[in-house]
Amino acid sequence: MPLKKPHNGLQNGDAGHEKESRHFGNGSQQQNMDLNGHEGEHDLPSMLEVNNDVPVVNGIGSSLANGGLNLHSTVKRKLDGEKDYVFDKRLRYSVRQNESNCRFRDIVVRKEDGFTHILLSSQTSDNNALTPEIMKEVRRALCNASADDSKLLLLSAVGSVFCSGLDYSYLIGRLSNDRRKESTRIAEAIRDFVKAFIQFKKPIVVAINGPALGLGASILPLCDIVWASEKAWFQTPYATIRLTPAGCSSYTFPQILGVALANEMLFCGRKLTAQEACSRGLVSQVFWPTTFSQEVMLRVKEMASCSAVVLEESKCLVRSFLKSGLEDVNEKECQMLKQLWSSSKGLDSLFSYLQDKIYEV
Amino acid sequence: MPLKKPHNGLQNGDAGHEKESRHFGNGSQQQNMDLNGHEGEHDLPSMLEVNNDVPVVNGIGSSLANGGLNLHSTVKRKLDGEKDYVFDKRLRYSVRQNESNCRFRDIVVRKEDGFTHILLSSQTSDNNALTPEIMKEVRRALCNASADDSKLLLLSAVGSVFCSGLDYSYLIGRLSNDRRKESTRIAEAIRDFVKAFIQFKKPIVVAINGPALGLGASILPLCDIVWASEKAWFQTPYATIRLTPAGCSSYTFPQILGVALANEMLFCGRKLTAQEACSRGLVSQVFWPTTFSQEVMLRVKEMASCSAVVLEESKCLVRSFLKSGLEDVNEKECQMLKQLWSSSKGLDSLFSYLQDKIYEV
Amino acid sequence: MPLKKPHNGLQNGDAGHEKESRHFGNGSQQQNMDLNGHEGEHDLPSMLEVNNDVPVVNGIGSSLANGGLNLHSTVKRKLDGEKDYVFDKRLRYSVRQNESNCRFRDIVVRKEDGFTHILLSSQTSDNNALTPEIMKEVRRALCNASADDSKLLLLSAVGSVFCSGLDYSYLIGRLSNDRRKESTRIAEAIRDFVKAFIQFKKPIVVAINGPALGLGASILPLCDIVWASEKAWFQTPYATIRLTPAGCSSYTFPQILGVALANEMLFCGRKLTAQEACSRGLVSQVFWPTTFSQEVMLRVKEMASCSAVVLEESKCLVRSFLKSGLEDVNEKECQMLKQLWSSSKGLDSLFSYLQDKIYEV
Repeated sequence: MPLKKPHNGLQNGDAGHEKESRHFGNGSQQQNMDLNGHEGEHDLPSMLEVNNDVPVVNGIGSSLANGGLNLHSTVKRKLDGEKDYVFDKRLRYSVRQNESNCRFRDIVVRKEDGFTHILLSSQTSDNNALTPEIMKEVRRALCNASADDSKLLLLSAVGSVFCSGLDYSYLIGRLSNDRRKESTRIAEAIRDFVKAFIQFKKPIVVAINGPALGLGASILPLCDIVWASEKAWFQTPYATIRLTPAGCSSYTFPQILGVALANEMLFCGRKLTAQEACSRGLVSQVFWPTTFSQEVMLRVKEMASCSAVVLEESKCLVRSFLKSGLEDVNEKECQMLKQLWSSSKGLDSLFSYLQDKIYEV
Repeated sequence: MPLKKPHNGLQNGDAGHEKESRHFGNGSQQQNMDLNGHEGEHDLPSMLEVNNDVPVVNGIGSSLANGGLNLHSTVKRKLDGEKDYVFDKRLRYSVRQNESNCRFRDIVVRKEDGFTHILLSSQTSDNNALTPEIMKEVRRALCNASADDSKLLLLSAVGSVFCSGLDYSYLIGRLSNDRRKESTRIAEAIRDFVKAFIQFKKPIVVAINGPALGLGASILPLCDIVWASEKAWFQTPYATIRLTPAGCSSYTFPQILGVALANEMLFCGRKLTAQEACSRGLVSQVFWPTTFSQEVMLRVKEMASCSAVVLEESKCLVRSFLKSGLEDVNEKECQMLKQLWSSSKGLDSLFSYLQDKIYEV
Repeated sequence: MPLKKPHNGLQNGDAGHEKESRHFGNGSQQQNMDLNGHEGEHDLPSMLEVNNDVPVVNGIGSSLANGGLNLHSTVKRKLDGEKDYVFDKRLRYSVRQNESNCRFRDIVVRKEDGFTHILLSSQTSDNNALTPEIMKEVRRALCNASADDSKLLLLSAVGSVFCSGLDYSYLIGRLSNDRRKESTRIAEAIRDFVKAFIQFKKPIVVAINGPALGLGASILPLCDIVWASEKAWFQTPYATIRLTPAGCSSYTFPQILGVALANEMLFCGRKLTAQEACSRGLVSQVFWPTTFSQEVMLRVKEMASCSAVVLEESKCLVRSFLKSGLEDVNEKECQMLKQLWSSSKGLDSLFSYLQDKIYEV
């Protein structure tokens, strides 16, 4: 099993953390930033784009970029992606140095003036793939942001990939060990992760710097504004990898893209470029990669100058008619994934597909 | 307070008019038109475009045209827009001369062969901004058209602006005087205006000659066919001016444009060109400004040659699943506006925003 | 009355066939194909495009191609379309020679590896126009495909037209004879035909080779993936020919295209090119005519390699929220058509429109 890193400990007895780990104070963080000699104004844009200028030289990056790749790259990449590992980690380290918040391992959370900035920056998976533990961290950060004085949330990613969806090497590893227990645990982790987005009451702005795959693309319609770099692209090849849709994409994608295109994405793995996603309604606007971060930050700060009541009530009006429907869809989708994963037939189909991809390398 | 014209009297004891003021007869109007030496066929197109050829030289027009402007231009324009006032009024006068209908002050209503033509032509506000009194006139005209033998309704505007939305100078003036009473009155006026569009049973065709802002853009999805001139553009910067969405835009915009773009319009004041609005579904088709009126009239007359039963039943089929939902949304949106306007905090936020804009000039 | 062929017999006592006529076995068909010296791999693409290379020289084809035509071409074409009749029939004959299935007269059904391929190839109507008998054949084929081991359904057409919608010469002929009885029979045939698409549980892929008109365009949103040739175009001029919408288009078209464009199609007969239909969400993707069949077959075969459970459950998730709504819409639409056809006024309007078109020729 191509499991690079042990995944243990966190999922056991971790529930208690959720309540006690409160958000770090604004003051201490600002102090920390000042200590690092960064001006707030210039530091934030660079935070967002931190890895944008890194040439995509690694096997993963380039195969992701030419579009020939599906989600199973998380399996494949182990073999040829090690050379840029150190460089990537050093960058992440420098990002994390700016933060006083040590309670998150796979995301970076920054409390800014009027908004909270969550950055996917996974250390326990590649290409910001999602594991139950990482999804839990995001949920905790959302929970914190819903309770503090943030008027809105900005979600972005460190690295050249926004989010490659569920970590399939993790999935295979876990389901091989204990199909029944793990299928329930992972399906519930997805359900709670998606639910946290559905229920979040403040506007969520997402800045998509690069590929958004699977669950990483499915959650976008649950966010409120989606700004994308020209480098971004979107793919949800669920049927191709023998899975059913998740993240409410079975409902939101047909709603936004029309059944014809939505089904082509869900059934045939059709890839959308940033421009296509924009012209079809998945993305609000596309920006040039070199100025992407500045454009996003400019707009987020302007939004954060609005009245908190107006922002929250506007979102409430926009979402109120969708909310209960989305929660039902989410339940059904996760129920279906659990069934697939706990049936030997569904699992065999998934395994044989993913293992074929490994042998192909 | 930048209130140019006194707004009083009309809202008191005006309710009685609604029932007694019946539509003018077809015969007398045709006679009047003939007296003016106009041929029906050629007169109608020119009615629609009456101001299209006027070069946009005034401060309002040009600032609206370059897109840098928000709704607050209704406040700003007082200072630099007077020079073309006489010209504009003279044109409106010549339009109104053709009409026998003196019961409307801020709209022109023409009963044509098979359809009713309502033109926004506000004398008590600038840029066809909406006040409760103007909205009441539109409601009366809709009510008349629903009862007579019109097969459909054509809505257009006199001047270079289609409709600049709610009149904010009026709003500030009124709310400053009596916050509690006026917030209820104005919110109810919006509610009833929007409800009249939701409940209108015959097809509504809208011809958008220029900018459509705020409520003037929000009601478009409540109409059935939207034809726009290349000069048209669309903006609903509700959050920017510290308001929540109105005109059912919190429901219809996400439905039509997708959540990502709808929210960018509602939260960030994203402006759509006519072409963008068309490619995203808000507009049916875009026409060249010089032939816009002819193209619209040609099509409206062809539609008016259809069977009245087929037109009304087709609209009924298309709308039946939306109607009750839209009425709920309308109620909620207006309830929220009322709350905002009657709270001192919401009002302060609105006032300080609008007054900043005045001081900026 | 321009009725070319007698339509009788089939609708009487035909109900019994539906249950007893089971699908032909896979084996015998393959054998038959081998006997004809075709390799499965190369035969299928050619099946799809069988008539693609035929130059469009006939009156119908060219008038359809230049877009100046409405549905009433089915009436008009009798007069100038005879010259290519023999050629067309010979092609159809060669297609049908490959099939062992003699139970269908106006469609060709091929059981392929993992999927069922239905081809509209009407012999009793022109331009693949739909009569109650042809719709019944499609329903029977859908019923068979739902019960066998097909993972999905491919629907395409023989000839240069995908489907010209309801056969209006048939409609006029029948309604002239017995308005009351025939209006019920035809409306119910449409209802059951549309219902069969709504209720079909496996993914339906449609390949649109040419014009799709009226009901032939309306059913597309009830299918799951819509691939179109550049030569395809789409038109639903219901109001123009004095009809109300059918095929759930009163619901699905506004949902997918936005009310503005949907109503322009339903009320004004606005024609969409393949590219327009794609950019607005009615079509998944557009392909070059010369490689259209290959592209479709390649993708269908890849889809058919997926897990049957995943395909069916994914479709179930995508459709579950629409299904009951669509069934209601379908009932209402057909109820309305029945009313129109059984009222002398509605019928007069339809007849006078269609007869005008005949006299025009």
